[in-house]
Amino acid sequence: MTTITRTVRYRSRSGAEGRAELLDGETGALRTLEGAPAASLAEVELLAPVLPSKIVGIGLNYRAHAEEMKKKLPAEPLMFLKPSTAVLDPGRPIVRPAGYERVDYEGELAVVFGRRAHRVSAREALDYVAGYTCLNDVTVRDLQVKDVQYTRAKGFDSFAPLGPCLASGLDPSDLAIVTRVDGEVRQRSSTADLIFSVPALIEAVTRVMTMLPGDIISTGTPPGVGQVVPGSVVEIEIAGIGVLRNPVIAE
Amino acid sequence: MTTITRTVRYRSRSGAEGRAELLDGETGALRTLEGAPAASLAEVELLAPVLPSKIVGIGLNYRAHAEEMKKKLPAEPLMFLKPSTAVLDPGRPIVRPAGYERVDYEGELAVVFGRRAHRVSAREALDYVAGYTCLNDVTVRDLQVKDVQYTRAKGFDSFAPLGPCLASGLDPSDLAIVTRVDGEVRQRSSTADLIFSVPALIEAVTRVMTMLPGDIISTGTPPGVGQVVPGSVVEIEIAGIGVLRNPVIAE
Repeated sequence: MTTITRTVRYRSRSGAEGRAELLDGETGALRTLEGAPAASLAEVELLAPVLPSKIVGIGLNYRAHAEEMKKKLPAEPLMFLKPSTAVLDPGRPIVRPAGYERVDYEGELAVVFGRRAHRVSAREALDYVAGYTCLNDVTVRDLQVKDVQYTRAKGFDSFAPLGPCLASGLDPSDLAIVTRVDGEVRQRSSTADLIFSVPALIEAVTRVMTMLPGDIISTGTPPGVGQVVPGSVVEIEIAGIGVLRNPVIAE
Repeated sequence: MTTITRTVRYRSRSGAEGRAELLDGETGALRTLEGAPAASLAEVELLAPVLPSKIVGIGLNYRAHAEEMKKKLPAEPLMFLKPSTAVLDPGRPIVRPAGYERVDYEGELAVVFGRRAHRVSAREALDYVAGYTCLNDVTVRDLQVKDVQYTRAKGFDSFAPLGPCLASGLDPSDLAIVTRVDGEVRQRSSTADLIFSVPALIEAVTRVMTMLPGDIISTGTPPGVGQVVPGSVVEIEIAGIGVLRNPVIAE
């Protein structure tokens, strides 16, 4: 049985940035990666746990979500890119761009690469994974439909909240995932329902492009996507990782 | 009249990387950016002139190309992303992925940002530009049609040849652009035929996402796209910039 470790990036009150191991999700106790006893979560501001050079999103990867979007099940993983400038720290606000009404949350399991990966087979895929985190694949739904290409709809600054930690040692094959808006459950599923598993996604993506350390595959969203409005608070919780929480504001 | 300066990145025979001003495109005379007299192009290996964190491509931005692809003219710029891992140095081979036949060249003017840009108006857009270079928006045409999303078709490693230099001080409104395959002209146009001008593209893209120094908008390709095969040599030449030349090999 592999030990699960959770690593956070943070900014302390003095403004210094660092990394620490999260020892206890309840108390928020931290230990710096040098092993010194350290602060608790209450004393620091969390940052996105990694800074990806790219985020490869996967469309329609939960059977029931494909049905809710009235789409055929894909024969191969449907890939798109979110820019690194969309990454948002835990707790920071998702900004609804002026002129767009229909902004949706999409709770997702994000796979973080630990090593350069090119043409990796599914069998050896998990050796390339540094860990897992939560990603909110925020989307302007009407732009997604209008543009066909997902780039604008999913590419606005703040549209990739990421965190709260990088969890290593998890088995990604059956993780419970829940999305709440203002405390109300909107999505509840398990990665056991993925059409393409994490190893299959790694094989398919690295067949096309090299993934660098810190790069992310976001594995797609379960059914129950829906709108948020300024004032909403979105939480994505994945078993073994924790809760990613972001409010929504208007531009 | 602004002076045009051309900057290259290179690797010398000793393996050291540097930047230099290209003094003379004919003789290839270089001057290091510290002003010392330096080598000539013949003595160095050119590298991509910038390392973008992202490349925003624009689809269907020449009227006649939209017609050749049998597409309606877009009402707004059609954006997509190419990953930074697709960037290829001048002279290095474009790799046709195993299993795909129809790999096309697309010669394009690439706009390189010099400053962080968010919500920049067209009127002030050119103040954010560091310069211009040539980009080959290499595309697996059959995958582009099949996937609908352009990510796979345009995202393979080596699918964004870039160079030969960063040319500053150019007026982007009427630059001649030519693509040759094995010496034969395949595309010949001018950026005067762009549907959305460089300032209009900068306004539209930075309305969505922040562009960082080195980031690129590739402005779309003129009519005449077509296939290359292993052994082909593709050249993209833009007035004031120079020639970007890459051979094609099979994986």
